[in-house]
Amino acid sequence: MSIFDNPDEYFMQQALREARDARDEGEIPVGAIVVADGTIIARAHNHTERLHDVTAHAEMLAITAAAETLGAKYLQGCTLYVTLEPCVMCAGAIGWAQLSRIVYGASDPKRGFATLGRAMLHPKTVVEQGLLADECEQLMKDFFKSRRQ
Amino acid sequence: MSIFDNPDEYFMQQALREARDARDEGEIPVGAIVVADGTIIARAHNHTERLHDVTAHAEMLAITAAAETLGAKYLQGCTLYVTLEPCVMCAGAIGWAQLSRIVYGASDPKRGFATLGRAMLHPKTVVEQGLLADECEQLMKDFFKSRRQ
Repeated sequence: MSIFDNPDEYFMQQALREARDARDEGEIPVGAIVVADGTIIARAHNHTERLHDVTAHAEMLAITAAAETLGAKYLQGCTLYVTLEPCVMCAGAIGWAQLSRIVYGASDPKRGFATLGRAMLHPKTVVEQGLLADECEQLMKDFFKSRRQ
Repeated sequence: MSIFDNPDEYFMQQALREARDARDEGEIPVGAIVVADGTIIARAHNHTERLHDVTAHAEMLAITAAAETLGAKYLQGCTLYVTLEPCVMCAGAIGWAQLSRIVYGASDPKRGFATLGRAMLHPKTVVEQGLLADECEQLMKDFFKSRRQ
């Protein structure tokens, strides 16, 4: 898969790579990428275990890193690719950052922000769901299955 | 005001000190304290401007610092004192951290989490509002008034 064939799928594959890195570190396998003008400006995966920090979700780390790269608080014009539907905390951060677009893979019916509507996002933020959802979901399922064994 | 007379008010005064530090640094004046067993284990104020990071709210920084102090992800048994009603992002973080109690001063009818209910909090978290609300609100009002001049 080249970036030229299908940029969205290419970037979600990159988010999946981050998610697999998380899995390999014993973290819940969620990965996130921030893209500006077709370029990845931040990549991160879940670090809650290693940092003992419930706020260290992939999206939070990616937003902080993207702001650092740009030297700007707001991420207008940027797209966030994330393998799992963001939780309310991350959706709140996405709202403050005013990201133009978020694309997520697997849904999270229990903890995902969509259970509360999308009032916490900036009204102009475009939300797309379901890209590579099977692959994103499978990673989560396999992880929790292996932890129960 | 001694900690022995009214611990809640004492700790909110400490949160207000943090908020005033934020104001003096040109940050939106919000301060937060985390208390465990009657002891302050973390204190923080808003750093969104200095860090160019929309996620650097007082509550987020205080939760991360408290977890660091305790060496544990979850803050069960801890109370968070914060001068302003937490936003959805911070309420989400409070939910993940499973804080036992949050006490906030000023309400935030526009951006506060309560506009969406309290589904993002842990069901056992006790929420108390309005402690030193006038003082907490005045700090915000004066700050925004001074910025408009």
